[in-house]
Amino acid sequence: MLAPKEVVKTPPTSSPSVFDLQNIRHAIFQAEQGLKEQGVPIGAALVRNDGVVIGVGRNRRVQQKSATRHGETDCLECIGRLPASVYKDCTMYTTLSPCTMCSGAMILFGIKRCVMGENETFLGGEGILQSHGVEVVNLNLDSCKKLMNEFIERYPDVWNEDIGEEDK
Amino acid sequence: MLAPKEVVKTPPTSSPSVFDLQNIRHAIFQAEQGLKEQGVPIGAALVRNDGVVIGVGRNRRVQQKSATRHGETDCLECIGRLPASVYKDCTMYTTLSPCTMCSGAMILFGIKRCVMGENETFLGGEGILQSHGVEVVNLNLDSCKKLMNEFIERYPDVWNEDIGEEDK
Repeated sequence: MLAPKEVVKTPPTSSPSVFDLQNIRHAIFQAEQGLKEQGVPIGAALVRNDGVVIGVGRNRRVQQKSATRHGETDCLECIGRLPASVYKDCTMYTTLSPCTMCSGAMILFGIKRCVMGENETFLGGEGILQSHGVEVVNLNLDSCKKLMNEFIERYPDVWNEDIGEEDK
Repeated sequence: MLAPKEVVKTPPTSSPSVFDLQNIRHAIFQAEQGLKEQGVPIGAALVRNDGVVIGVGRNRRVQQKSATRHGETDCLECIGRLPASVYKDCTMYTTLSPCTMCSGAMILFGIKRCVMGENETFLGGEGILQSHGVEVVNLNLDSCKKLMNEFIERYPDVWNEDIGEEDK
């Protein structure tokens, strides 16, 4: 059920930057809040290259009965309309490897970097990102894996629904 | 500003099916409603293979100050949560070539067919769709091109913002 949809898998970054480790915390907070709401624990933060947090978001499948509010799209949606130049100067931080929809959203708006917490529990559209010139960094964080593993074990059906899978 | 982001461009379908010409009308109605609201005139409809319309949607950038509510994502979002099997038995009708975000959303949920009104005024993620096994059909309809051309001429800045472009 959790089979990767892409062949490419980003290896963990050997020496993650202090900047990235600082900023992924905004996304992790969102994911933790999601778990407290019995939601899919995936968070995101759009951070400008000078460290300003433009916005944050989390998966709202359960909370809002939403099909398209993943961590990254909820983040983009909560921010609202922006001129193109703002996106181009930002990194998207997300606790989990971004799905194909969220990868496509980043490409659409010209976001040039994506930093993820991990890609072990799910492998999304990393190949699409990389083939469109987006820099992809995998921090390989145990804290992010723990959140997802706890959720998947407790609510496997909700997780499968979130990624378009279904037990027969 | 409207330069294609993909090399692949789907040629018009020489003999579109009655079924597809019937169902694209649901999406065109949505686009026309959008134009009346001074919104980006792009509509979508998710239609089950037996002709049942599962849901409809339209771009809400202007109406809701939304960054991620394109025709297709608004359609998926208005429908709400669905088990995976429903998507897999559906075609997404959209008045315009779907952007990379919307293409990624279709791939995520396993939608197997995408029928568009046209791809002359904008060329989106068709290459991504096709490389993931999605059947792509271009009806090449003048009515859809007219809606977009009217809007782009009247509100070029809004259109550029919708596709992550910006005049310097």
